[in-house]
Amino acid sequence: MVSAFDLCIETEYRGLGSLVFCGEMKEPMAMGIVVQKFGGSSVRDTACIKRVARRIKTEMDGGSKVVVVVSAQGRTTDELMRKARAVTSRPPQREMDMLLATGEQMSVALLAMAVDALGCPVVSLTGAQGGIFTDHRHMKAKIQSVHSGRIAQELDSGRVVIVAGFQGISDRDDITTLGRGGSDTTAVALAAALEADVCEIYTDVEGIYTADPRMEPRARKLREIGYGEMLEMASLGALVLQPRAVEMAAHYGVAIHVRSSFSQSPGTWVKEEATMEREVLVTGVTSDVDCAKIVLVDIPDDISVLHQVFSNLSGVGINVDMIIQTSKEQHTTDLTFTVAEADVEQALDVIKQADAVKDSAIVYDENVAKVSIVGAGMMSNPGVAAAMFGCLNEAKIPVQLVSTSEIKVSCLIPRARIQEAVQACHRQFELDFVV
Amino acid sequence: MVSAFDLCIETEYRGLGSLVFCGEMKEPMAMGIVVQKFGGSSVRDTACIKRVARRIKTEMDGGSKVVVVVSAQGRTTDELMRKARAVTSRPPQREMDMLLATGEQMSVALLAMAVDALGCPVVSLTGAQGGIFTDHRHMKAKIQSVHSGRIAQELDSGRVVIVAGFQGISDRDDITTLGRGGSDTTAVALAAALEADVCEIYTDVEGIYTADPRMEPRARKLREIGYGEMLEMASLGALVLQPRAVEMAAHYGVAIHVRSSFSQSPGTWVKEEATMEREVLVTGVTSDVDCAKIVLVDIPDDISVLHQVFSNLSGVGINVDMIIQTSKEQHTTDLTFTVAEADVEQALDVIKQADAVKDSAIVYDENVAKVSIVGAGMMSNPGVAAAMFGCLNEAKIPVQLVSTSEIKVSCLIPRARIQEAVQACHRQFELDFVV
Repeated sequence: MVSAFDLCIETEYRGLGSLVFCGEMKEPMAMGIVVQKFGGSSVRDTACIKRVARRIKTEMDGGSKVVVVVSAQGRTTDELMRKARAVTSRPPQREMDMLLATGEQMSVALLAMAVDALGCPVVSLTGAQGGIFTDHRHMKAKIQSVHSGRIAQELDSGRVVIVAGFQGISDRDDITTLGRGGSDTTAVALAAALEADVCEIYTDVEGIYTADPRMEPRARKLREIGYGEMLEMASLGALVLQPRAVEMAAHYGVAIHVRSSFSQSPGTWVKEEATMEREVLVTGVTSDVDCAKIVLVDIPDDISVLHQVFSNLSGVGINVDMIIQTSKEQHTTDLTFTVAEADVEQALDVIKQADAVKDSAIVYDENVAKVSIVGAGMMSNPGVAAAMFGCLNEAKIPVQLVSTSEIKVSCLIPRARIQEAVQACHRQFELDFVV
Repeated sequence: MVSAFDLCIETEYRGLGSLVFCGEMKEPMAMGIVVQKFGGSSVRDTACIKRVARRIKTEMDGGSKVVVVVSAQGRTTDELMRKARAVTSRPPQREMDMLLATGEQMSVALLAMAVDALGCPVVSLTGAQGGIFTDHRHMKAKIQSVHSGRIAQELDSGRVVIVAGFQGISDRDDITTLGRGGSDTTAVALAAALEADVCEIYTDVEGIYTADPRMEPRARKLREIGYGEMLEMASLGALVLQPRAVEMAAHYGVAIHVRSSFSQSPGTWVKEEATMEREVLVTGVTSDVDCAKIVLVDIPDDISVLHQVFSNLSGVGINVDMIIQTSKEQHTTDLTFTVAEADVEQALDVIKQADAVKDSAIVYDENVAKVSIVGAGMMSNPGVAAAMFGCLNEAKIPVQLVSTSEIKVSCLIPRARIQEAVQACHRQFELDFVV
């Protein structure tokens, strides 16, 4: 178990700067606006599309103005990627965006047809038509401004507006995509721009749980969770919401309601911590098995070496997590960190390109996983980390690395022990009793 | 055999008015521009896409500036239509366009990837990005203007430009499609706007033949054909080129080269009749089995009745061909005409809505086909029609209806006899000897 760490750099979700919202919404509309986002599994086939259409119709009948954001159907995006790879192993990213954007364009058109068939006025829009302007970074573009004029106008004419998620347009008039899960971000950006009452994220689970119910059957659905906690949970492997979307929602104060597209029961509200009614130390336990540990042995103990290694990794877009440097004798050091499992090979290649470490031994281990506890309540309570280590120790689960933030503690452990670890933490912090 | 007809109205391809071309091509470019159009079968799978990419590369290496127009892959459009119909039997046309446009967007992206993989700078554009502006008639939009600024700029930067055929954008920023085969029209419109040297239409046959080779094995490939003849041939069932594209090419003097995407040999040039070197009466024989005959028996002999019937048909978009009215005693008349076979049912419905004929007997016959001879040379030669009737009579093929234009004669005959009829005409006008 590692008890001291000299250096700890957390993966950062960069500040958004400020989004520009352009539109002509001079005065608040009489009726509230609801933004509903449906993921790929919610529209995976005709029956699902029709169910979503009925849901939209119900919301319209209730008197709301409805904006819907949809992802590509089921596995469409994977299928398109497969087609591209059949043509070339290195498709240009601009052309990948041109290709991938067709997935959402298909779903918005099909969903609009289904809504129309219920007798409800409707119009579908691509990201570009919906005024989603992004920067030029193809396949991982960031939304820079939302020109909501067309959407506001369609809403005013009494139509449901269905917008393609995941995509936008750059100021060079090129189609861009926001990266996997970007539809959540589209939904939150539109909710912010339109000053919607709520951004509903429909998914195939009932809400946010204290732990992944597949790991811990005693996990309970949370009634609400703060932005900060949700951001940690999302970053740590709770795949229901994209961290970028949570970050944007926090920035613009958009209330998110995560709920199931298969039931009518309320899900989990994601909102300001200040509105929380309860006082608990730990809100949830997350696990992430998509990680691998890399150790550079006996490298020069020099900050410029670290800079070179991590610059090279970030240069090829590899996110690094849980960095630990342990000083040794004779001005050498061991540098340990984790990356996503899929990035290991490329990471090793890139590391070897750094002059200072090219002759060092490099060890890696893919049989690791990360268990984390998250909670705004732990901010001023140092005993929480100790209690976590205690319960893992009691279960005889060895901890290889630790990293912390103000509202979470993460431990790297052997992958085979992850479920045990989640259950131990869940029990330790009495999450079974949180409603 | 009908020997006299009182009234003959031909289906008309409406005048284009004038297309607006906007761009910044102040002076002629040093290198010639070639527009190449590849149909759905030319890009139906990965191997085909790669072959097309190599063809484009060869053209680039020869020093041309290349603009490529592509259709949706293989049966993609049919597949998308099937998806829409699974959702609703009456999909709104605007949403159909939204859906169908994804087909070409996929092909341009994949083809651009293949061209890029050959080390050739390339960019793909949607119809909207390519500046194809249309009217608002969804699923059968007409191109109104071409804003070629982006394309010219990409060509100037040395890139191959791959534009999605079949689609455009209206001035309301809605995606439109040009109807089946609209990619030909896109290619010709771009060739006109860019003042291209040639518009090459790649297809799965070697060019334009004196007859459909499946009907007449002795059919010969034409070296060239005039716009007017090509227009008649295309309208009469030679499916290689869209009539609208031919009409636009004639209007703007765009030279079209119809050729095979599977071979390097020259195909057929479509250009001004004036440049023709040969003097033949008949250029080709066409056949069309996609027709049905409708007869309204004993209706009032009154032009307002005809107006009502045909207005109703045109109101639902049904094209009528070969109209014949035969006056009878007691101020009644029989009205005979043909429509596409798929339109019969709807045509009968619509006709019954006309007050004046709602009580008349209606007879229809789907076992008919149309054989036509086409040739600019017949314009001042009345003997051509007689020779056609003669050869059909000699083969004992009964002629049910006749219609003519300055450069064609069409006869409606029993469908079972169509191949015999094509071969009889082909022989009669000595087309075997035309090179």
